[in-house]
Amino acid sequence: MPSFKDFIQIDKGADIAIYLQVVNAIIQQIRRGQLRSGSKLPGSRELAEALTVHRKTIVAAYDELMAQGWIEMIPRKGTFVMQDLPEIKPKKLKQGEPVLLYPEKTIFAIPENRPGAFPDPVIPDSTRLIINDGFPDTRLVPNELLLRELRSLGRQTAFRKYHMYGRPEGTDYLRETLAGFLRETRGLPISAANVMITRGAQMGIYLTAQLLLKPGDQVIVGESSYFAATLTFQQAGAHINRVPVDEFGIDIDVVEQLCEKKRIRLLYVIPHHHHPTTVTLPPERRIRLLELAATYKFAIVEDDYDYDFHYTSNPVQPMASLDHHGSVIYIGTLSKTLVPAVRVGFIVAPENFVRAVANLRMAIDRQGDSMMEIAIAELYRNGTIGRHIRKVVNLYRERRDHFCALLTDRLGERVSFKIPDGGMAIWTKFTDSDLRQVSVKAYQKGLIMSDGQRYNTGQTNYNSARLGFASLTLSEQGKAMDILVNCL
Amino acid sequence: MPSFKDFIQIDKGADIAIYLQVVNAIIQQIRRGQLRSGSKLPGSRELAEALTVHRKTIVAAYDELMAQGWIEMIPRKGTFVMQDLPEIKPKKLKQGEPVLLYPEKTIFAIPENRPGAFPDPVIPDSTRLIINDGFPDTRLVPNELLLRELRSLGRQTAFRKYHMYGRPEGTDYLRETLAGFLRETRGLPISAANVMITRGAQMGIYLTAQLLLKPGDQVIVGESSYFAATLTFQQAGAHINRVPVDEFGIDIDVVEQLCEKKRIRLLYVIPHHHHPTTVTLPPERRIRLLELAATYKFAIVEDDYDYDFHYTSNPVQPMASLDHHGSVIYIGTLSKTLVPAVRVGFIVAPENFVRAVANLRMAIDRQGDSMMEIAIAELYRNGTIGRHIRKVVNLYRERRDHFCALLTDRLGERVSFKIPDGGMAIWTKFTDSDLRQVSVKAYQKGLIMSDGQRYNTGQTNYNSARLGFASLTLSEQGKAMDILVNCL
Repeated sequence: MPSFKDFIQIDKGADIAIYLQVVNAIIQQIRRGQLRSGSKLPGSRELAEALTVHRKTIVAAYDELMAQGWIEMIPRKGTFVMQDLPEIKPKKLKQGEPVLLYPEKTIFAIPENRPGAFPDPVIPDSTRLIINDGFPDTRLVPNELLLRELRSLGRQTAFRKYHMYGRPEGTDYLRETLAGFLRETRGLPISAANVMITRGAQMGIYLTAQLLLKPGDQVIVGESSYFAATLTFQQAGAHINRVPVDEFGIDIDVVEQLCEKKRIRLLYVIPHHHHPTTVTLPPERRIRLLELAATYKFAIVEDDYDYDFHYTSNPVQPMASLDHHGSVIYIGTLSKTLVPAVRVGFIVAPENFVRAVANLRMAIDRQGDSMMEIAIAELYRNGTIGRHIRKVVNLYRERRDHFCALLTDRLGERVSFKIPDGGMAIWTKFTDSDLRQVSVKAYQKGLIMSDGQRYNTGQTNYNSARLGFASLTLSEQGKAMDILVNCL
Repeated sequence: MPSFKDFIQIDKGADIAIYLQVVNAIIQQIRRGQLRSGSKLPGSRELAEALTVHRKTIVAAYDELMAQGWIEMIPRKGTFVMQDLPEIKPKKLKQGEPVLLYPEKTIFAIPENRPGAFPDPVIPDSTRLIINDGFPDTRLVPNELLLRELRSLGRQTAFRKYHMYGRPEGTDYLRETLAGFLRETRGLPISAANVMITRGAQMGIYLTAQLLLKPGDQVIVGESSYFAATLTFQQAGAHINRVPVDEFGIDIDVVEQLCEKKRIRLLYVIPHHHHPTTVTLPPERRIRLLELAATYKFAIVEDDYDYDFHYTSNPVQPMASLDHHGSVIYIGTLSKTLVPAVRVGFIVAPENFVRAVANLRMAIDRQGDSMMEIAIAELYRNGTIGRHIRKVVNLYRERRDHFCALLTDRLGERVSFKIPDGGMAIWTKFTDSDLRQVSVKAYQKGLIMSDGQRYNTGQTNYNSARLGFASLTLSEQGKAMDILVNCL
């Protein structure tokens, strides 16, 4: 028998529990053939003394080894290494050479040039500052509270059912919570049955496109508009009609002309802080859009992802709150309120729509992460999310003002922009330099920023970028501007 | 000025921090009009004494109220309720009656009778026992360790970048970890570039179908086969060809005959524990399938969701590990290893396939939950998941044997089944009773079980159900059987 004291080395400062250190050391000895099938192990008291640990630790280790099938206890005889060891090595396939290099490409063809291939996402880089597309400052988010909530729920047996499969619409608890929150803050006269929980706003757009659009269907978006939505409609086979966007959003007269000429199936609009230009759609245009949708029976997809981040005055009531006919699919997200990597958003719609997209969603990913949904609901109910929104709205307003002042003071006539009423980015036109070159130079000097390509629509080169101010402190804004000034 | 001591009632035993109790009480007074704009608040020392709390608590509360924009500090004057209160009430839409009842249905048409509507998921019910379709026992999962890991990562600034948007393929850290785990345990000669992280196996199936299938494409599945995969292929427009499944899985001769007659695009197979019948595809058939796929250039979708749960002997090496040509899309999941509600799975495939499905995924939900992915990778690296698998394999083997013994002892000739080599369910044929009636009776007596409908394929009524044994302790199995016996 080997000396257990020699091969089991306990590190009391290590991150891993002592009984697991014992478990792992014994498994390693068995694997290496040092401890053979049938070998007798020392009694728990004896081993505890040899290792100077508590006897309970050894009992826990032996229990774990037994549960894993490495050792067995034979009454009145002792503890032994098992005869049939549980090593799971796959049965080899009989013929054929082993593959040394995994095939580089598939033998079957993969369709190329599908409509709407997405541009690569911009990945942050720890050695560079980043002016992003308009994302929140993840340092401010009550992430610690969310994870504490999640862990506390995980311990309660009453919540254990949420570990199992649930409904594709999301957990009722979050649906009810959000219905209440949206009723109260946005005037939506809805119940939980009108709410479907999604993976961010993007899944809301995707499900809507997959459900409603077939090849050749006519869709209206702004010129320019949020590229990911446009690509999603194109992938569903839609024909895209672009209507001009002015300082008050999309041009409703042009929408009406299109409705007279074509059978429009869906119109996509971002009422708060149009993407990319950040303008707010005023009440008059909202009312007219609702009238047109009721007359021509098309779906308004109201992507209100930015509602909570309005600074100058009060936000405008969503179209969904005045929808008498069932024309509006209202989409929102918590990715901007929490961190983007927590993928939770929602659709608000008439019940028949919620049921239909929920069924579609079964094919995609079946359901969301229920425990995370419950934890988020708790943060709404205990006021954490409301407090967080108030706090960052004040901070982001200050960051917006500071960034706009920097743009004016440091870049002057070389850029043009309007101060947006809300959102997290300034739509900035570069008047005398090629944005693509600016972006390359900036990258070399340690600043990641958009080259503006994703906002262009084929015919138009805006030479403009969304400059995200919300995720930068005032001092970081200054540093970013120092670099940018040197790139023009 | 109101008496602060009266309206701020501190509950030191409450779940909510004391400074937040102060914050909430003051906000409530402002909202009710008791504390008006411009009112002066007591100094922090004074209020702390009145409430008998620490002065720091009041400073923290005032800081929070300032951050939220409720109060302002005027140097040398004091702390005051703000003039412009931050209440965010939406600007009303100007015209139109308010909506009192949200519309019941959409005004635009929603396509009905789409191919492949999914049956409703079975939701557990706290008042009834459930024999599910073959799901893990969530009580055994190291969920507490996962949440602890998640919370610990959340606190480390090094991991903060994972709160922001990342890549649709998943975090590199989990991709590398899984590549290593699969190389070691399943002989897949892969690198991280061959791994894409998905939301469970279902998203792997969905992405593959969306990428490869166009309307009219020929797909082969077993008769019967996993209904969710078949529906997903049908939704993508595929024509489904069903080949018989015997006690060794799908019949390769029939597959070959089909390949000679039709241009097959994709074949779907569950090599470990075919769904629903639980049989294992032996090495000979795997080799022949690989040869056919190379000859006829179709994609094999190898859904190996059950690999880790093989009891009788060693599992068989995946086809993907012997794929010289790039024929195999290998799909797996952690939903059975962890809890089903944590939606993490993977695709292993040649790099061109991974890149193409990743781009598709941008449209669906953009990316996974990065922090959860990192936490899961840690559980692989520190051995937690390996230990958990070993432990439950032993336990599930015991539960399988006990459940099969119960079926034989208590139901005898009234059911027929074969003991499966692995998985979490027994495919059980009811020989002398109508399963739909059995299921209704069982429900009335407090037991939820399948009525078998989802396994039927139009022409065939198997009158069989998957009886999930893994999530029931031996004593729960006994109770379930007591009910079932009374329903036949």
